[in-house]
Amino acid sequence: MTSGPDFGVDAELSLVGERIREAIRSEEPLLTDIAEYVIDAGGKRIRPTVALLANRAAGGKNLLQTVQIAAALELIHSATLLHDDINDGGLLRRGREAAYKKFGLQNALVAGDFLFVKAFQIGGKFEPDIVDLTARVCTSLAEAEIVQKRQSGDLAVTREQYLDVVLRKTAMPISAGARIGALLGGGTREEVEALTSYGLHLGTAFQIVDDILDVVGDPAVLGKPVGTDLKEGNITLLVLHALNDGSARRAELSRILRRRRKSPDMIGRGLTLIRESGAVDRARVDAEHFGFLAREALEPVRAGPARDALGRLVDFVVRRNM
Amino acid sequence: MTSGPDFGVDAELSLVGERIREAIRSEEPLLTDIAEYVIDAGGKRIRPTVALLANRAAGGKNLLQTVQIAAALELIHSATLLHDDINDGGLLRRGREAAYKKFGLQNALVAGDFLFVKAFQIGGKFEPDIVDLTARVCTSLAEAEIVQKRQSGDLAVTREQYLDVVLRKTAMPISAGARIGALLGGGTREEVEALTSYGLHLGTAFQIVDDILDVVGDPAVLGKPVGTDLKEGNITLLVLHALNDGSARRAELSRILRRRRKSPDMIGRGLTLIRESGAVDRARVDAEHFGFLAREALEPVRAGPARDALGRLVDFVVRRNM
Repeated sequence: MTSGPDFGVDAELSLVGERIREAIRSEEPLLTDIAEYVIDAGGKRIRPTVALLANRAAGGKNLLQTVQIAAALELIHSATLLHDDINDGGLLRRGREAAYKKFGLQNALVAGDFLFVKAFQIGGKFEPDIVDLTARVCTSLAEAEIVQKRQSGDLAVTREQYLDVVLRKTAMPISAGARIGALLGGGTREEVEALTSYGLHLGTAFQIVDDILDVVGDPAVLGKPVGTDLKEGNITLLVLHALNDGSARRAELSRILRRRRKSPDMIGRGLTLIRESGAVDRARVDAEHFGFLAREALEPVRAGPARDALGRLVDFVVRRNM
Repeated sequence: MTSGPDFGVDAELSLVGERIREAIRSEEPLLTDIAEYVIDAGGKRIRPTVALLANRAAGGKNLLQTVQIAAALELIHSATLLHDDINDGGLLRRGREAAYKKFGLQNALVAGDFLFVKAFQIGGKFEPDIVDLTARVCTSLAEAEIVQKRQSGDLAVTREQYLDVVLRKTAMPISAGARIGALLGGGTREEVEALTSYGLHLGTAFQIVDDILDVVGDPAVLGKPVGTDLKEGNITLLVLHALNDGSARRAELSRILRRRRKSPDMIGRGLTLIRESGAVDRARVDAEHFGFLAREALEPVRAGPARDALGRLVDFVVRRNM
């Protein structure tokens, strides 16, 4: 995994990495290769970082169990990346060829299933409430994919509907890690709820920033082209802001969004329209708002270096450029 | 589900069906629709039947838990059907349009993930050894898909390699149901091992008959065209027998198998070559052989109507025409 900023859990993140490598060993080397390809590609390790910090902030008990859950959540995340790339037809992921392009659609599909199973093999050994929460995360992810696809190009989508997809797609998985970390850590009921809520707000901020970067990010830093959401017809917060602009841009952007097939020129023009509308700045305010809610949620958690690190993680998530 | 022959567990199978319907309820109706589409299409219900009969044969304790596991195994089976159809490009499944054709590839892919998760949500509540066994079934399935694809059109594949794929793809899932059913039923260690072994042999016989039907089955009864294995370049037992024939057929069949793209005429010709080689009869002898091993494996199991039914199930599997 590439290394991100240091939030004081690097040693634990290494354990997570070890647990993942152990889980993806297979008698069939190609499965291991594909799994390693997705997982080595790294990413920001937000999910395991949140789970580990929440564990420590809530008392730090059962660290090794938290490592297991963090590994399971990262495996689920990698599985969805594999399947999402097939679904979106994305050619690049983290600066490299998407796995389904490199290894073939069939192999990538099966490798995604394999990662899901490995995640559940780990998660299935925990208490029933943790199993249920992990399963609900996966169900939410599946539901979000379906809803997002159904709403593709639908200009009637509201801010609430957008936030509901974000909840299921990004906020719930991050929040579940925080909750399980806090439960295992031995937190009070109030701390567990606080860290659950922290995860939801942080996850929402994270997704809004993702959507912003898909409009104004640097493809070289992102490791993938921008404009993917627009191409897919995803009604993101930026699109909603741009459509609320009231100017002539609205009509032109609407036309582009409704097109099922969009040329690169159309996507470029759509991105320009969104940028000119001021939607990026408004979305940044939204991200800051959810970041603020995340920091505020931490208030009932016992003071200490882990809680501080969770606060710094909010800043990192809101200000990141990749 | 369509109704198969009566092995005395129809009431329990209804409970399995109820548990499945409960599991696939989703906030996103399209997911439920796709899941119902695959599951309503029925099939032979071999997996739950084996689990339920093994449970009863081994003492019949924990029936409701066995129903849960049977439901989980059937959900896993349905998930793999969804993903396999995407992988094989199969247009028909059980007489109806394949789900990915009807609902779109992306939706079918996500629905497959959803079914896996629901299976694990059920299975994850059992003892760690049952969770592990269920996970190993899924891992085996994934490995089998990869191996089968890698070996596609490879004329060096041996009978042992064929049987290894069958083990992972079909025999292990059926055997795992038998084993878990027997464990939950309260069987002796010897009975548990006997029923595990029964499942492996029955599953192998089942797959050989599947391969036979793909050569000489009636498409109207099967609900799908024949020749799928040949089209995919799968080196089945029938192909191995036909290639061992030594006649001029061998060269022609080899040429067809090595072609990546095969016309309908080529597939028709390949099927004729296999039929003419006597491979079908030899494969029937193989299926009978594994059926015999399955019946023999039952010997240490306490006598009674459930053991008798497991014996009749062997006859059904070996003689089925769909």
